[in-house]
Amino acid sequence: MTHSFESIAPLLEGQAIELPSWAFGNSGTRFKVFATPGTPRTVEEKITDAAKVNELTGLAPTVALHIPWDKVDDYAALSAFAQDKGVKLGTINSNTFQDDIYKFGSLTHVDKAVRQKAIDHHFECIDIMNATGSRDLKIWLADGTNYPGQGDLRGRQDRLAESLATIYERIGENQRLVLEYKFFEPAFYHTDVPDWGTSYAQVSALGERATVCLDTGHHAPGTNIEFIVMQLLRLGKLGSFDFNSRFYADDDLIVGAADPFQLFRIIFEVVRGGGYGSDSDVAFMLDQCHNVEDKIPGQIRSVLNVQEMTARALLVDRDALLAAEKAGDVLTANAVLMDAFYTDVRPALAGWRESRGLPADPMAAYAASGYQAQIAADRVGGQQAGWGA
Amino acid sequence: MTHSFESIAPLLEGQAIELPSWAFGNSGTRFKVFATPGTPRTVEEKITDAAKVNELTGLAPTVALHIPWDKVDDYAALSAFAQDKGVKLGTINSNTFQDDIYKFGSLTHVDKAVRQKAIDHHFECIDIMNATGSRDLKIWLADGTNYPGQGDLRGRQDRLAESLATIYERIGENQRLVLEYKFFEPAFYHTDVPDWGTSYAQVSALGERATVCLDTGHHAPGTNIEFIVMQLLRLGKLGSFDFNSRFYADDDLIVGAADPFQLFRIIFEVVRGGGYGSDSDVAFMLDQCHNVEDKIPGQIRSVLNVQEMTARALLVDRDALLAAEKAGDVLTANAVLMDAFYTDVRPALAGWRESRGLPADPMAAYAASGYQAQIAADRVGGQQAGWGA
Amino acid sequence: MTHSFESIAPLLEGQAIELPSWAFGNSGTRFKVFATPGTPRTVEEKITDAAKVNELTGLAPTVALHIPWDKVDDYAALSAFAQDKGVKLGTINSNTFQDDIYKFGSLTHVDKAVRQKAIDHHFECIDIMNATGSRDLKIWLADGTNYPGQGDLRGRQDRLAESLATIYERIGENQRLVLEYKFFEPAFYHTDVPDWGTSYAQVSALGERATVCLDTGHHAPGTNIEFIVMQLLRLGKLGSFDFNSRFYADDDLIVGAADPFQLFRIIFEVVRGGGYGSDSDVAFMLDQCHNVEDKIPGQIRSVLNVQEMTARALLVDRDALLAAEKAGDVLTANAVLMDAFYTDVRPALAGWRESRGLPADPMAAYAASGYQAQIAADRVGGQQAGWGA
Amino acid sequence: MTHSFESIAPLLEGQAIELPSWAFGNSGTRFKVFATPGTPRTVEEKITDAAKVNELTGLAPTVALHIPWDKVDDYAALSAFAQDKGVKLGTINSNTFQDDIYKFGSLTHVDKAVRQKAIDHHFECIDIMNATGSRDLKIWLADGTNYPGQGDLRGRQDRLAESLATIYERIGENQRLVLEYKFFEPAFYHTDVPDWGTSYAQVSALGERATVCLDTGHHAPGTNIEFIVMQLLRLGKLGSFDFNSRFYADDDLIVGAADPFQLFRIIFEVVRGGGYGSDSDVAFMLDQCHNVEDKIPGQIRSVLNVQEMTARALLVDRDALLAAEKAGDVLTANAVLMDAFYTDVRPALAGWRESRGLPADPMAAYAASGYQAQIAADRVGGQQAGWGA
Repeated sequence: MTHSFESIAPLLEGQAIELPSWAFGNSGTRFKVFATPGTPRTVEEKITDAAKVNELTGLAPTVALHIPWDKVDDYAALSAFAQDKGVKLGTINSNTFQDDIYKFGSLTHVDKAVRQKAIDHHFECIDIMNATGSRDLKIWLADGTNYPGQGDLRGRQDRLAESLATIYERIGENQRLVLEYKFFEPAFYHTDVPDWGTSYAQVSALGERATVCLDTGHHAPGTNIEFIVMQLLRLGKLGSFDFNSRFYADDDLIVGAADPFQLFRIIFEVVRGGGYGSDSDVAFMLDQCHNVEDKIPGQIRSVLNVQEMTARALLVDRDALLAAEKAGDVLTANAVLMDAFYTDVRPALAGWRESRGLPADPMAAYAASGYQAQIAADRVGGQQAGWGA
Repeated sequence: MTHSFESIAPLLEGQAIELPSWAFGNSGTRFKVFATPGTPRTVEEKITDAAKVNELTGLAPTVALHIPWDKVDDYAALSAFAQDKGVKLGTINSNTFQDDIYKFGSLTHVDKAVRQKAIDHHFECIDIMNATGSRDLKIWLADGTNYPGQGDLRGRQDRLAESLATIYERIGENQRLVLEYKFFEPAFYHTDVPDWGTSYAQVSALGERATVCLDTGHHAPGTNIEFIVMQLLRLGKLGSFDFNSRFYADDDLIVGAADPFQLFRIIFEVVRGGGYGSDSDVAFMLDQCHNVEDKIPGQIRSVLNVQEMTARALLVDRDALLAAEKAGDVLTANAVLMDAFYTDVRPALAGWRESRGLPADPMAAYAASGYQAQIAADRVGGQQAGWGA
Repeated sequence: MTHSFESIAPLLEGQAIELPSWAFGNSGTRFKVFATPGTPRTVEEKITDAAKVNELTGLAPTVALHIPWDKVDDYAALSAFAQDKGVKLGTINSNTFQDDIYKFGSLTHVDKAVRQKAIDHHFECIDIMNATGSRDLKIWLADGTNYPGQGDLRGRQDRLAESLATIYERIGENQRLVLEYKFFEPAFYHTDVPDWGTSYAQVSALGERATVCLDTGHHAPGTNIEFIVMQLLRLGKLGSFDFNSRFYADDDLIVGAADPFQLFRIIFEVVRGGGYGSDSDVAFMLDQCHNVEDKIPGQIRSVLNVQEMTARALLVDRDALLAAEKAGDVLTANAVLMDAFYTDVRPALAGWRESRGLPADPMAAYAASGYQAQIAADRVGGQQAGWGA
Repeated sequence: MTHSFESIAPLLEGQAIELPSWAFGNSGTRFKVFATPGTPRTVEEKITDAAKVNELTGLAPTVALHIPWDKVDDYAALSAFAQDKGVKLGTINSNTFQDDIYKFGSLTHVDKAVRQKAIDHHFECIDIMNATGSRDLKIWLADGTNYPGQGDLRGRQDRLAESLATIYERIGENQRLVLEYKFFEPAFYHTDVPDWGTSYAQVSALGERATVCLDTGHHAPGTNIEFIVMQLLRLGKLGSFDFNSRFYADDDLIVGAADPFQLFRIIFEVVRGGGYGSDSDVAFMLDQCHNVEDKIPGQIRSVLNVQEMTARALLVDRDALLAAEKAGDVLTANAVLMDAFYTDVRPALAGWRESRGLPADPMAAYAASGYQAQIAADRVGGQQAGWGA
């Protein structure tokens, strides 16, 4: 019932999945962060690792930075360094959750001085974007409260709108403000941007260059995420994806690891809604934590998972789907979808990679490369990168 | 820390909670509907029961109808009947989920003929509104799918927009279209209006007289409902509440029975956001199923729960809250809220009721009235009302 | 990394998945039950449909009965009828949730007379088992309460233990009592057997021939079901499966439709724990509702899903898994599992079926058979079977 | 409908809620740990703060230690120090989740050497118990995996049983091993002791002095926790409570802050099941994190919440409840419960406290005491205590 791999192969050209610099640093839970040999100490080492992922997969041409974790003195030099490694700098991610002043909020804080500090941080991020040539400023806000009564929900929302408007004014003509939403964590009672509806309402008030970032791990249990994908595409407000997977909360596991069928459905809605391909400006990114697994192959596995699932989603015969829907034939409609999902695209993709001068099996190629042993030997001393660094 | 009851008592005047006619009929689960003696056989008997609730509580001056369950030949006569009993007819609820033709959807159906039938049903509802003088047309849509692939999510959403626009055109100057959202059930894979964001996006496209209905039982586990209340009030799109409570899914239990503190927080946000009082047009309604408990006292208990919680919400010292927030004093802020919640307003409310010629204890008054025995004796034969009737 | 299909093919021989008679009748939600042409009116017609599933798949040699829905005067005759169609009668399911007397419970009811009636019903079921030669009495209990305070949780649990002990005494030497648990529905506040722990504690107190039934749709959101499978196998108390799938609550969708990877993990734990194959007495059953899809092909699809997933689970190279675990190599361990999951076993299974005289594609064979048109034409008049019948 | 406060007041005597030493140190999320002035640097300072809570409330006579966070050279001296401050040392909590060697598990680890190290740690804890005179060894196990395939669930469970048996052998005649369960975190795919059933099965295999610890924040969404309380009491295996509250995951908020009615129902089941009072050996403890609120008043608020809720639970007229249940009168049964819950016990408790020489309002007394300013001034320099210390 599905299309042939040959017929969809051209659509795989040019697929790009941005890597987060922080995925190469150490991460963990509130209980423990386990360190691993070879972990980067500098942003240059993170970029070098990211470039390795791109070298082996051809899928990850850009690296997202997180400020201040990836702050440097000379962004032009950093861009040049990246280019030298074969990648570019991508999205700039702001951080207003680690300074003591943000204990009770940042862009939503009841105190104007704190809000201004948070706004200034975003101005600094925009300056960096101008230096790096980055398109997107991504704002994930940790703001929220832990106890009912702690904050005036409405006051905070109004202040958020005001702060975002101030930041948005500074955004360049070819730049975008992308607002991420998250169900909960680190705040437990309420989060100031908890759902797509809030993010959508806020960015709609800003203007055309403000869009929503959908992190696949940031929803309530049972949420139909592909429905949100469809809706945001329909409303013209889907800016980017943070891909990862989760069983319970925001586990930040390897994308596709927890529920591969859900990933398939999500990407299928992206394709169906026009969010995939060179005509679309929807950005695909990873946002993951490799707490117990090796980080570089963890990223390789992740971009391959996205690629494989994209291939399966492209295989779906949408005409057959529509015909079955019109006939009220539920089982056939479902079978059309499942047929694509159950198709083993891996052998065809291996061949496709080889035909482009890439390793047929990037995981095996990495294991055979000696890179991991090399960085473990080389990167001795210094402070390994992590969320606090 | 709280205001005195006396200071907030005037604000309790005029509180009105609409009763659903169907709460007086039999209801149940897919496993079994238990019947009870005295259950109404006709819409007139339902209205009579609803009027009893209002007589004893002074809180329930209107009754919502559900079409076709409450269809009659002469709505003017029905209005007069209600008026005679001391109540008015309120919101008209449409039903596009029980006709065989709606198996795969109604306003979203892939077949134009089915959509037209569903639109026509809403036209009929508007005709009834014109006859009864009702302000609100409430649309809860059961549309959705059970299996991935069964429907084109985007196509359905676009058709929904088109259908709603057609209905909205027919809505009178002093009428409103209120669109309810629901997380899941009766559809299991996807629901066409699953969250407030979708309802908000749809009604925003329609115009000023289209708003959102928030049913307190229609959310994913863990959802912060009072945040949504705040947001919809902020966006000017909160039309009405369907009150009930739930432990797991859409249990439709007595409002306040499952999580009284949540009800308190919700009503507090209504008050804080300007959604309560004579200046606001936010409608308070019940939408409940009394599967195992007596229906009339179940409704009395429910409106009392809303009234008691409203009193507690009004007791909150909002200046003290704001001061604590500004001071970053989390424990005091929380204490201000909890103090109002833990205040036992019941004795004061009993006195307040008596001062208005109402029974101090409406539950006891009902039990003592002999009404239940009377209807059990009188209403013999005929077909008891239920969801299928 | 996986075994070859040839090496695991012998293990597919003899796989048996019991069909529920009620899956062939109409079902729905509290909102609506949609009827379909050709739906059985009698238990004989249900068995006939079930036999069709077995004829085309070779996977469904037995049919479970539900009492009183499938009550007949002569069970020996019914057994003969089934045998004639090529199947046998299997598990007997009791029903203590549709009689008015059970409004507040059955085996747990506070009134001894009601409990006795429920016990007597189970005695009747055991009589039927003796007549049909069935091994298993499956008890799913709808008992529970909707409101805190409504029932004494402890008293109900103690009475449940007493009732079960009385029933267990009547269970024959070669028979089993299988106690199903369910998170919620139809009761909303509490369910008397809500989790595996309760079922395990209750059956452990009874004796060796009492075991637990795990319905894959009866858990809280986020529950790791394969862990429970492992634990019950370890404790020697996994009696049977009710297979189905769900997105939110107890949706009773086609097994594998909502989360195929979860089904894979569950069956893999069954295999790893010794619960699969001729040495094991763990029973595989379906418990599904085909509300909007055709029922017979819905059942065919379901048993095929179980078979395909069993093949994938058998492909897993457990030695490689263990080696990776010992090496602390998370990515390789996960890859070993995923490799089996992503293997497309469908072509090999089609060939395997043909080599046994079965249709390569049972879904297509059913569609081509004309059976559906025939029963739609034949089964006119009478009362279609459903949950209330 | 409720009992009078006077009639239940005697039952409030002697209520004891153990405080966790770690609640006085800094805590946070994976994103940030905010420090506060006055935070203890040593276990002695933690005990001093805990003693302050007891001094003002009379409710917290013991302090739980966490090893190695609270390791000292001389436990006899530490006991004497505590006694001097007016409190005793209580439960000893082990920690096998912060050493690098435990990355892939501790008592369940596939490598015997790692398991032995974890067992030895528990032996050390028992030595400490012998020195401090503590009764309970509490084991909360972070063991689990993040990815399907990473671990052999069954092998881990069997090794857990073996490790626990080894530890249990060392437990003294008057000591207990208490095994805590937790739904998820820090492991995301599976946790080795995820639910009460697993903990129950494991401790049942050990013997009489092994029981279950129920942490109120460690359940799946929607879980009826009071049912588990009832069941564990019924089975004789409820050892202790870790009280806290949560909206989403294991938020570790102040007990009663998120859902006070749930806390009421839980304590009511404790009372109804015989788990409260001098005859019972069920231990009440707090396990909380005060991430954004002051820690000492956070603990005061917490023990007061438990006390207030206990008073309300004791007020319930259980005879009236039973009578309503027998009559099938759902609304009255629920009203009996709610009447106690809505009773404002705070004024009576204030008087009761005063009559015992305690401050009527411990929160106000703490604020007025100058203690917070004092410790902020005194505790300068050194390393503030936290989870990593």
